[in-house]
Amino acid sequence: MDQSANTPTIGFGSRVRKSPFFASTRSWGCNAFSVYNHTYMPIHYGDPLQEYQQLISAVTLWDVACQRQVQISGPDATRFVQLLTPRNLSSLAVGQVKYVPLVDENGGMVNDPVLLRIREDMYWLSLADSDVLLWAKGLAWGHDFNVQITEPDVSPLQVQGPMATDVMQAVVGAWIRDLKYFWFRETDIQGIPVVVSRTGWSNERGYEVFLRDGTRGNELWDIIMAAGKPWNISPACPSQIKRMEAGLLSYHNDMNLSTNPFELGMGKFVDLDQEADFIGKQALKVIARDGIRNRLLGAYIDGAPLPVNEHRWPVTVDGKAVGELTSCCYSPTLEQNIAYIYLPAILATAGRKVTVQTVVGERAAELCELPFVKNRAGDNAS
Amino acid sequence: MDQSANTPTIGFGSRVRKSPFFASTRSWGCNAFSVYNHTYMPIHYGDPLQEYQQLISAVTLWDVACQRQVQISGPDATRFVQLLTPRNLSSLAVGQVKYVPLVDENGGMVNDPVLLRIREDMYWLSLADSDVLLWAKGLAWGHDFNVQITEPDVSPLQVQGPMATDVMQAVVGAWIRDLKYFWFRETDIQGIPVVVSRTGWSNERGYEVFLRDGTRGNELWDIIMAAGKPWNISPACPSQIKRMEAGLLSYHNDMNLSTNPFELGMGKFVDLDQEADFIGKQALKVIARDGIRNRLLGAYIDGAPLPVNEHRWPVTVDGKAVGELTSCCYSPTLEQNIAYIYLPAILATAGRKVTVQTVVGERAAELCELPFVKNRAGDNAS
Repeated sequence: MDQSANTPTIGFGSRVRKSPFFASTRSWGCNAFSVYNHTYMPIHYGDPLQEYQQLISAVTLWDVACQRQVQISGPDATRFVQLLTPRNLSSLAVGQVKYVPLVDENGGMVNDPVLLRIREDMYWLSLADSDVLLWAKGLAWGHDFNVQITEPDVSPLQVQGPMATDVMQAVVGAWIRDLKYFWFRETDIQGIPVVVSRTGWSNERGYEVFLRDGTRGNELWDIIMAAGKPWNISPACPSQIKRMEAGLLSYHNDMNLSTNPFELGMGKFVDLDQEADFIGKQALKVIARDGIRNRLLGAYIDGAPLPVNEHRWPVTVDGKAVGELTSCCYSPTLEQNIAYIYLPAILATAGRKVTVQTVVGERAAELCELPFVKNRAGDNAS
Repeated sequence: MDQSANTPTIGFGSRVRKSPFFASTRSWGCNAFSVYNHTYMPIHYGDPLQEYQQLISAVTLWDVACQRQVQISGPDATRFVQLLTPRNLSSLAVGQVKYVPLVDENGGMVNDPVLLRIREDMYWLSLADSDVLLWAKGLAWGHDFNVQITEPDVSPLQVQGPMATDVMQAVVGAWIRDLKYFWFRETDIQGIPVVVSRTGWSNERGYEVFLRDGTRGNELWDIIMAAGKPWNISPACPSQIKRMEAGLLSYHNDMNLSTNPFELGMGKFVDLDQEADFIGKQALKVIARDGIRNRLLGAYIDGAPLPVNEHRWPVTVDGKAVGELTSCCYSPTLEQNIAYIYLPAILATAGRKVTVQTVVGERAAELCELPFVKNRAGDNAS
């Protein structure tokens, strides 16, 4: 990515936290950051496209310490955590992970973390960018929950890419090959306490390593980098291209408090029939009964590779503004521009042609169901 | 500020909101940003020191749209807002503003906004960087409050500096001269709906202009810039130097959930004897009875001008780590380095010598009460 004189700069200050891996990311050449959960988040090491190639062909190490944890523990932890999400957690075992949309009393998305059941009565929410610590503490206030709600000293790394299992075997041992998708194990790495889960923000093979001692971040980084050398490990950051190819959504980009899970195609994570109560149950029942007003779909956009959108772009049909493009990128693997588009449910049908007002002019686009496919003419019907 | 190849960059993306004044700040040359309340925040226009000089000698216009509002309205708004803060609000009139620490059930700082009473039953919290929208919504859940809690389309600008009143008179008329400190008025500026308050994050004369229509940000910016031309108005950003000279604290820099108002010298904003209930009342009563364990004080640091600290620096006494420097800068007006230091209450006495482990080596420092003064040897005793 060219670093011209006009590339906007960021200031480092004590208002925003530095990750335990900050010094490592800087010494490995990271010079581009954003802020996420009040923490500096590395966003690329100079060339996001090269990082994407490394991610799909070898293995990459990401500093995602900004993905903060909220820990809920105590005798009523299970009941309280269930209250936070419409997903039915009754089958969640210790050692298991689930993706859990969190919604407010209107059914609007508060966050979309993964949930780790660390012990019978202790959970971690591994968060997107909103203060779920305050949300959960507020909810607990004045009610009869025997829970402690804290932000523990836990900072994740992600090891993602086809060689991730080989690297992790070198780091933690052969048991990693038996770790099932969306399960985790507590262990240590040369004495550094960690939780290792088979999860991550790509659809490559991947792991998250949750560091449990913030003073040892750079030590852990170095261990993984050294172990990964035979597989050509390289530092990278969460990839907009890869997460879109995987059909993954991003909080604030593609959803917020005014979006509900049904609009996002997350109906499978909503159990309205479960006995347990959860926040937003009544509102989501009404939405389920009356139908959604808007929906998020995929789209293919014609023409030359588009830049990543800096803000939402207007979407029109017959010259009339109807919706918004929330995210887009050019996918080298699919060899086309892909996007998410949020628009009235009545217009949200795969195959519909719409127009996107991009930053480089009008572009024709075609709505599609997710995930995206390579040869859409042939495959879309399946 | 020199923009070398190693100056870290920020990426603009659709995950973080742009201010309604974003295009204006870019066209006036802003190229340095941070993120605050999920919104890009301009942090300087190339030379913070020059902005400081403009602020203390003329007048400056700041984009602080990132200072988001939470609106609380409805029949129980007054009771609910009082619940959020230990400050006694019984005398807060419509049209008035108060600084209100918000604390959690332990008395820890959640945020430190100013509160505007817009109507009898409608309030705005004008916020520092934490999701008070989620905090307040969480608190209200499951309780019998008839309130609506929303983030309205309201984006502040600040007009700060000795010429601010002249500029604001040119913009809104002569009534501005009668607006008292910490009061506001609803009005419009050439048809653009705004609230104008005599408040701001400096101790110069200053105003906040709360834009109530996010589509008209650049229009409002241009009107104020044009009106301010005779007084040499210039764009600027919140000044670390000026806010420290004014003794103002910054959320996350100088306080967080683990800090209570008594530690911060905010005892005058805590009314434990009021009849009304508020969150944290019991915890703060215990702290008031038992005394604080830590305290934030001012300090003067010897030697050449220090850079602004990127993170907290260790503070030692007799070689033993005892506390942390939370913020510092070199004050051109006071002609010395000034700082805030957080350390055990038992050591927190003005005049005590401590050592700060700065990024440029050890420095001797002397604790002081706030506000800072110019000739401390003579004035400190007063």
